Amino acid sequence: MSCKITFQPLGKRCIINENQTVLDIVRKNGIRLNNACGGNGTCGKCKIQIKCKMPSSLKNEDYKYMNPITKIEKKFLTKMEIINNYRLACFTKIYEDAIVYIPDQDNEMENIILDRGRNLKIDINSSIKTYDLIIKEPSLEDYRDDKQRLVDAICKVEKSISNLKIDYSLLKNLSSILRRNHWKVNVVVRNNDEIIDVRNILKSRIYGVSIDLGTTTLAASLIDLKNGKLITRKSKMNSQIQYGDDVISRISYCMLNTNGLDELSNIIREDINTLIYQMAKENNIDINDIFEIVIVGNTVMEHIFLKLNPEYIGKAPFVSGIREFIEVKLRQCDIVASKFGYLCFLPIEAGFVGADNVAVLLAEKPYLKNEHSLLIDIGTNGEIVFGNKDKLYSTSCATGPALEGAQLSFGMRATNGAIEKVKINDITLEPTYEVIGKVLPKGICGSGIIDVIAELVRLKIILKDGSFNSNIKSDRLIKVKNKVKEYVLVWKEESGIDRDIVIKQKDIRAVQLAKGALYAGAKLLIKHSKIKRIDKIILAGAFGSYIDKKNALYIGLFPTCPLDKIEVVGNAASEGAKLALLNVIEREEAKNIAKKVEFVEVANERDFQKEFFEGMNFPYGISIN
Amino acid sequence: MSCKITFQPLGKRCIINENQTVLDIVRKNGIRLNNACGGNGTCGKCKIQIKCKMPSSLKNEDYKYMNPITKIEKKFLTKMEIINNYRLACFTKIYEDAIVYIPDQDNEMENIILDRGRNLKIDINSSIKTYDLIIKEPSLEDYRDDKQRLVDAICKVEKSISNLKIDYSLLKNLSSILRRNHWKVNVVVRNNDEIIDVRNILKSRIYGVSIDLGTTTLAASLIDLKNGKLITRKSKMNSQIQYGDDVISRISYCMLNTNGLDELSNIIREDINTLIYQMAKENNIDINDIFEIVIVGNTVMEHIFLKLNPEYIGKAPFVSGIREFIEVKLRQCDIVASKFGYLCFLPIEAGFVGADNVAVLLAEKPYLKNEHSLLIDIGTNGEIVFGNKDKLYSTSCATGPALEGAQLSFGMRATNGAIEKVKINDITLEPTYEVIGKVLPKGICGSGIIDVIAELVRLKIILKDGSFNSNIKSDRLIKVKNKVKEYVLVWKEESGIDRDIVIKQKDIRAVQLAKGALYAGAKLLIKHSKIKRIDKIILAGAFGSYIDKKNALYIGLFPTCPLDKIEVVGNAASEGAKLALLNVIEREEAKNIAKKVEFVEVANERDFQKEFFEGMNFPYGISIN
Repeated sequence: MSCKITFQPLGKRCIINENQTVLDIVRKNGIRLNNACGGNGTCGKCKIQIKCKMPSSLKNEDYKYMNPITKIEKKFLTKMEIINNYRLACFTKIYEDAIVYIPDQDNEMENIILDRGRNLKIDINSSIKTYDLIIKEPSLEDYRDDKQRLVDAICKVEKSISNLKIDYSLLKNLSSILRRNHWKVNVVVRNNDEIIDVRNILKSRIYGVSIDLGTTTLAASLIDLKNGKLITRKSKMNSQIQYGDDVISRISYCMLNTNGLDELSNIIREDINTLIYQMAKENNIDINDIFEIVIVGNTVMEHIFLKLNPEYIGKAPFVSGIREFIEVKLRQCDIVASKFGYLCFLPIEAGFVGADNVAVLLAEKPYLKNEHSLLIDIGTNGEIVFGNKDKLYSTSCATGPALEGAQLSFGMRATNGAIEKVKINDITLEPTYEVIGKVLPKGICGSGIIDVIAELVRLKIILKDGSFNSNIKSDRLIKVKNKVKEYVLVWKEESGIDRDIVIKQKDIRAVQLAKGALYAGAKLLIKHSKIKRIDKIILAGAFGSYIDKKNALYIGLFPTCPLDKIEVVGNAASEGAKLALLNVIEREEAKNIAKKVEFVEVANERDFQKEFFEGMNFPYGISIN
Repeated sequence: MSCKITFQPLGKRCIINENQTVLDIVRKNGIRLNNACGGNGTCGKCKIQIKCKMPSSLKNEDYKYMNPITKIEKKFLTKMEIINNYRLACFTKIYEDAIVYIPDQDNEMENIILDRGRNLKIDINSSIKTYDLIIKEPSLEDYRDDKQRLVDAICKVEKSISNLKIDYSLLKNLSSILRRNHWKVNVVVRNNDEIIDVRNILKSRIYGVSIDLGTTTLAASLIDLKNGKLITRKSKMNSQIQYGDDVISRISYCMLNTNGLDELSNIIREDINTLIYQMAKENNIDINDIFEIVIVGNTVMEHIFLKLNPEYIGKAPFVSGIREFIEVKLRQCDIVASKFGYLCFLPIEAGFVGADNVAVLLAEKPYLKNEHSLLIDIGTNGEIVFGNKDKLYSTSCATGPALEGAQLSFGMRATNGAIEKVKINDITLEPTYEVIGKVLPKGICGSGIIDVIAELVRLKIILKDGSFNSNIKSDRLIKVKNKVKEYVLVWKEESGIDRDIVIKQKDIRAVQLAKGALYAGAKLLIKHSKIKRIDKIILAGAFGSYIDKKNALYIGLFPTCPLDKIEVVGNAASEGAKLALLNVIEREEAKNIAKKVEFVEVANERDFQKEFFEGMNFPYGISIN
């Protein structure tokens, strides 16, 4: 019997057999885990946390999904650790699909998977303002109530304000706060409309967080709302990944499990809290000074986060519960920052075209330009927008996780040990490659796979239909019954995982499906728009910023066009979220865009199937102009 | 050692000695309690619930405030009853001041203590509206999100609406609700602004509750918001009474006890929930169909209910935390009705002049009239308003609970056994009296005490300064050292409590203090207004509707004026609350009035002390015109 283990935060999937320990697997797959004693059970360094996938409701007490904890382990683990399912990898055997969390690896990950944005210049016009006030004390002649006294003091310095609401839970403590601070306070006002904090006059800092909530990755920025300065950025894996790679599997989980939605939502809320807490702590920032959080993400992530039923997004006619801009108090969604602060979700365009795409538009502003832009945002789900200031059309296509390095035989995220660049020699067919982190290679990330496939196509090792060319001979091409089945990119001896790293036929198929979906989406969207001209291709998404444009163009990942017309903008969704966090006018703009973009359900278009299959071919997919 | 026991919901205070059982005291004071076996411990009928005043945080486990529960009692009580401190009165001895709750006596009370309002005719213009909708199902051609689809359907039938918010917790279930009901739903909209329920199309009823939250009594009305029909009324004692009779003792409790505010607030929230639950249940109404609750009450009750610190209302300069109209979600203050509904508190005028007084003004509308009205609302705290459409002045005075029958030697609330009317024969000095409920008399309620004192003054048994006239001889006048100390209203043999019912010198002093406060308040308010003319005296408050106007006038409870100019309007605060519940224009009016009334702190006026002492005199207090 063997089971699947996913190592987090690495995102690495492995198989474990009944008689193997987790440490065996860790070593075999070249995963970094401190084990000073070499697995002898004497150092206690190889701590891991086991998270079993099985819903706890289905478990009974006799149920065993791993071997029982040993006396030696108990010696090395605290009581809290034992309660929280911590083990030592060298003693642990696992009998069921599980997620194994390796503590302290988050830090190592962060710099690598962090988004590369353009750092647009932003005019600061935040929803949050603060005022230092010295308030007149009450007397028998001036017996205004505390709240009115406060509002009057604000209106005196801010002429544009005539009245203000106050958060009810803040009101509960207002009288005490004013007196404790001897009527000298710093007041935080949101949207010129609501008092959201009253605090010691020595406090004046206000922070916000923008978050790109991806199906796979979360990226957060902690920003000073007074000057727009980026304090820090941090990212982490979306812990929901243990419930499936894509949005459809997450929806299924919500539908098939009692409290499934709550469970998934709480996981992502905890992820966000972890990021906020870490960013604040490392920069000596009081989390109570974080007053506003802007989130962008795809529609399913948004629904799950907000605990809105995502069921109907997943099936025709793909309808969301809500599309408009949403703001709720942070405490209503269990986010640990100022309890009086707000969380905003940018609006959704339609079904699968979510707030993340609105954020991309906000960052790139094709709706202000004359030129016709084709925006492609590649994630686990691909979104495409086409048009200019006159009109914008959008669609979405299920590209799958292949382009992000997931679900390939040796796919991995763009972190230490990932092959990110590949060249193949024309004559010897021997590859040369670059590995992130200058360590022995452990797998291939998205940009690496594009390079390999482009090279294989260029050298005709892969044919137009994506199958291996069995006429080419090389040690690197492994044949079974005279048919080539895989290309060996790294021999076992040179790899960090004690195995060959290979590109299999099924890996090529996965990339073909992804590019077929993108191709059909782009082509049918352009056709629908009746616009004949593409002036510019904008490639957004973290993935896009790592790939070799030429190779991507060559394998037909997006429409053929001159290389200099392709612009790589990195994680534009994160940039858009920052814009909406720092400027209320941008936020209004987001509301308008979301309404204006016309969503085109390309799967309904007559030629969809034909275009999809054409798009799967090599070397070229789509040709326009 | 002896301690004080307050029997609730009766409000009767008694003394208990160490060797007496609660049943002994019950019998001695003529309190109704089923004890079929005559105290032999064989019937189990004399169930009572003991509530000790001592904060639980101060208790240790060894602490004994009553004798331990006996085996026999355990036989008659359920486990839940034992946990909740139920006992049998015939076995229970109490060693500490406590409140003893007699179950099932609420019902007997309710009809008696219920407010007598004027039942004003009200134009129905409620904040809550409902719509029956058949919504177009989503399709690939029409993929609007669920929320937009719903809003569009409402806007189609209600042209004045262009957009609507939706309660976040309702939104969480919206998609499921729409589909479960096959897109045929009844929608509840508040203030043309927010969707607060979406339910089965067979549902269409909407209810509201108006509540007069008094220091002593709560009165609630359950009202059909579609037609304004009163479904039922119910009242109950404010359970906070165990923490003291007046607002000052409640404030002290909050200040002196950790979590004191939460404790008092939770008690009153529970009281309100009990009333709502009972009213709904008895009328087969689903509490989830109750969408709006309007509360009026004095400033301290409002602050405690809302968990706002009441500390600064209680000391100079008597400043409240907030004065404006407040609305919060019902769930934010733990009220069990529709979880999407709202609770509104009418605005406060100033310090001690609370939302209850605003409600009185709303009901009586002196601000629309030419005539100069003097409104007197007598409760544990007295509020006085004077003026007309040009200008209104208000003040408050600490009348104390004497006029409501509390804190007098034989005072009791206006319930069964209370003497409510008294005449004394000019020659024999023998009294005749009427008793509520046609039973043997147990005590005297407010209207009774006014009558007795008026008669004693008329017959010169009481002198101008309030002292007994020792020159008058009668068996009814009990002398100690040649000075009359009390008047015997009922001899032991005729009373229901096996004791004489008497009016003591200190009882007369209590009434003098109350009328002195009212006198000084009214006189100084009128003086401050510079208006020379009173056209009308309006007597509000439940107390006012029971008293003999002539006698009240005679002892100088309010300014001298022709009897036909005195109008008794009953519980006008309750009526005002109903107006604000049923008509949003009235609600706006309340906001305006609260701002316009000028509060006068009469205690600051130069002649306060002089007027106060003058007002304590008999027979006349104040004379104007």
